[in-house]
Amino acid sequence: MNKPTLLASIITLALSGCAQFAPSYNADLIITNGEVLTIDGNMSVIDNGVVVVKDDKIIAVGEADLADQYRAPKLIDAQDGIVMPGMINTHNHLPMIAFRGLGEEGISNRLFAYFFPLEGEKLSRELIYNATKLGAIDLAQSGVTTYADMYYHMDEMAKATKEVGLRAVLGQTVIKFPVVDSSAPYGGIEYAQSFIEQYKNDPLITPAYAPHAVYTVSKEKLQQINQLSKQQDVPVLIHVAEFPNEETRIKEEHQASSPVEYMAQIGILDERVVLAHGIHFSEKDIELVKQADAGVAYNPMANAKGATGMAPAWEMYRADVRMGLGTDGPMSSNQVDLWRTLSYASTMQRLKHDDRTIMIPEQVIEMATMGGAKALHMEERIGSLEVGKQADIIIVETQSANMMPNYDPYATLVFQANPSNVDTTIVNGEVVMEHRQMQTVALDDVRGTIDAMEADISAFAKELAKKAIKSKSLMD
Amino acid sequence: MNKPTLLASIITLALSGCAQFAPSYNADLIITNGEVLTIDGNMSVIDNGVVVVKDDKIIAVGEADLADQYRAPKLIDAQDGIVMPGMINTHNHLPMIAFRGLGEEGISNRLFAYFFPLEGEKLSRELIYNATKLGAIDLAQSGVTTYADMYYHMDEMAKATKEVGLRAVLGQTVIKFPVVDSSAPYGGIEYAQSFIEQYKNDPLITPAYAPHAVYTVSKEKLQQINQLSKQQDVPVLIHVAEFPNEETRIKEEHQASSPVEYMAQIGILDERVVLAHGIHFSEKDIELVKQADAGVAYNPMANAKGATGMAPAWEMYRADVRMGLGTDGPMSSNQVDLWRTLSYASTMQRLKHDDRTIMIPEQVIEMATMGGAKALHMEERIGSLEVGKQADIIIVETQSANMMPNYDPYATLVFQANPSNVDTTIVNGEVVMEHRQMQTVALDDVRGTIDAMEADISAFAKELAKKAIKSKSLMD
Repeated sequence: MNKPTLLASIITLALSGCAQFAPSYNADLIITNGEVLTIDGNMSVIDNGVVVVKDDKIIAVGEADLADQYRAPKLIDAQDGIVMPGMINTHNHLPMIAFRGLGEEGISNRLFAYFFPLEGEKLSRELIYNATKLGAIDLAQSGVTTYADMYYHMDEMAKATKEVGLRAVLGQTVIKFPVVDSSAPYGGIEYAQSFIEQYKNDPLITPAYAPHAVYTVSKEKLQQINQLSKQQDVPVLIHVAEFPNEETRIKEEHQASSPVEYMAQIGILDERVVLAHGIHFSEKDIELVKQADAGVAYNPMANAKGATGMAPAWEMYRADVRMGLGTDGPMSSNQVDLWRTLSYASTMQRLKHDDRTIMIPEQVIEMATMGGAKALHMEERIGSLEVGKQADIIIVETQSANMMPNYDPYATLVFQANPSNVDTTIVNGEVVMEHRQMQTVALDDVRGTIDAMEADISAFAKELAKKAIKSKSLMD
Repeated sequence: MNKPTLLASIITLALSGCAQFAPSYNADLIITNGEVLTIDGNMSVIDNGVVVVKDDKIIAVGEADLADQYRAPKLIDAQDGIVMPGMINTHNHLPMIAFRGLGEEGISNRLFAYFFPLEGEKLSRELIYNATKLGAIDLAQSGVTTYADMYYHMDEMAKATKEVGLRAVLGQTVIKFPVVDSSAPYGGIEYAQSFIEQYKNDPLITPAYAPHAVYTVSKEKLQQINQLSKQQDVPVLIHVAEFPNEETRIKEEHQASSPVEYMAQIGILDERVVLAHGIHFSEKDIELVKQADAGVAYNPMANAKGATGMAPAWEMYRADVRMGLGTDGPMSSNQVDLWRTLSYASTMQRLKHDDRTIMIPEQVIEMATMGGAKALHMEERIGSLEVGKQADIIIVETQSANMMPNYDPYATLVFQANPSNVDTTIVNGEVVMEHRQMQTVALDDVRGTIDAMEADISAFAKELAKKAIKSKSLMD
């Protein structure tokens, strides 16, 4: 028996003699009438379960009659829906939602034809704030309660994310070029320090460093960031083993046989690091990642869309690596929600291993919740519905045609559900969306701003589309 | 300039002198204010377009002011949404929606542990009728206006499909075993003849033969079906090159080097055939299919989920083979709508060919509409928004967070849209769903029946799950 169920049973037992009396415990929110996927160590499922929230935490999880023991001003009837931990998107560049859908006409040099000119011309504090707001609404509406991001002006992202009410790990980009928030190379380090100072104790925002990659940040700067992250006890987000030529370059320049080995050699592969992609991880890389207790963000849909490959995710899952799911940025998978990524996580590994029996839905849902929490080193706080965890909870309805029948909730979630089936989203005990109605920031509140942004970018993008820009690689 | 636009222009020109007068032409339905993707030969897009319907047909397509020339009792404001041909799902076994989500726990013998016992015990006329109704509602709500199916009791499927108001090509299964609708082997031939007789001139239903596969139907019966299909001028739906061992068996038994070559040799590969899967097609197979003018149903998501492989779809696209998209049955991809399949169609080919510039969104949407029409040999009637075509039209809204921004409608559809973004579905001129409200059969009308079916199957499936059934192959 797992802990929350045990606790619930004890409470139920203790109170069973006085069931005719009024409820004895105060709470803030009680969710009833749901199929509760706890994602605890035993993957316990409670067919008709209850989750009780007080302040920002889960204080009880159990069978239907548990509800009788609590009084709360807010009750949510899950209406036979699936009650589960909010999903965790472990890798994103959310403000790029401003540009999603551009450069999809099949050009080979998209990075130089679209990404860089768009970011160079249009990125600003204001765009980052506004685009984050749209993205965060999209995330909240689709049941993502925590996301990790690597981008610029992270204080603007933090502000917009908090207004919508989501949890986020926000990594300030550090890179050897001048960028939107720093005219000097590596200015991100200074920017990050001030951002970390500002958000160090925030209940929703975990500030972080985001050195772009081992080939765009010098050894000295990587080591400096590692030292700072230790002192400040913050995460480090980095892209690793996304492209095959990373390895070639590492071999030539650093006498290491892979980016992960290089990281280990220079002493920056540790338990604060989150590695995005890992497509080209070797067996030895996986062993090093496991030994270092680093996290991995697996982005199967983005990696398929960009033809970058299939990461050895099944191998990492079997090696018990801290691994969660990610979408990558909105110009990569064009989605910020995890629903399609759930099915890609399963199907890509089945194709890769020629085995239809692996990466079953239960494993995928575990990866999208507790796996993500572990990847971000936050498993003590989020990722499951257990007593003492932060109250990050979603309810997925099962009454729509696409959710029928619902024999196996994990299979229903991975292969049938769509973002629109998310009925209610709760983060840190606050109801962000209830019965599809946003309770914090409504889409209509930002529509005008977003439409103006779209019109402005659209005009510029039409000019880009006309230009033939010679192909060039980020590796050059 | 393409035909419909030309016609619209001529009409506009002819009437421009009397614009101040009342509209001159009678119609039944006018759709205004949409971004119209015509999917005509030039893939013309009309930014602010109009589609006019009379009876069951499209009678005009053009710019905004075209609307002034028509009067109609029914107007639909597309509200800046995308107006496009209804999608065509070219391969399904829709009634298996009754079983979707079962056997997803990672067993290797799912076919013998679940499929066959479930079908053996639970299939009936009544289940087929009820499950088809649920499936057809799911299809209508997600913008599929035509689907092709291979199953049993196709008269029941036809009845339910017509009640919901969809178009379908329904292939009565012919197989060498006794099945639910025939106690004798090959009883499907007789069943099909009576079914074809009944539905031969139906405006929505195209009756067809569905010999299961070349390894489950004898040469004589395959040839008999081919002869009958010629006499009755009906399609023939068949599974081909889905499993690698089909080829081995064909080589051993028939001295042909592939199922397609075998079909060509025995004279049954012709312009009435629709081949489902084609995962293991060789270059020569593709050439034979092209020469015979046969159609192909490409099922990328189902093939990934089942780890059966990646079909050479890009090669077929380049060879101009008649190819559409399919989901396969609801126990294979667990979806009946095409939205996830759209992104799989693109991403699987990009991975297969290590090239992110191929299978761009415009090509995928063409495949899901006109490609499907061609695969089913129905391109004269459906697949595009052109004058004279049957009025099978959907409107996809662009106001939800996941649809913003919308720079490139094809990219928005393939990589951002979800089934819930389908706002309105029109089939054969009839409005089946308007602003998300079903106009024919509502889900609540069938909910009780479906819930009872689910409860009954659930109890039986729990028994199946307990049994350890030894792995066996359909090829044995």
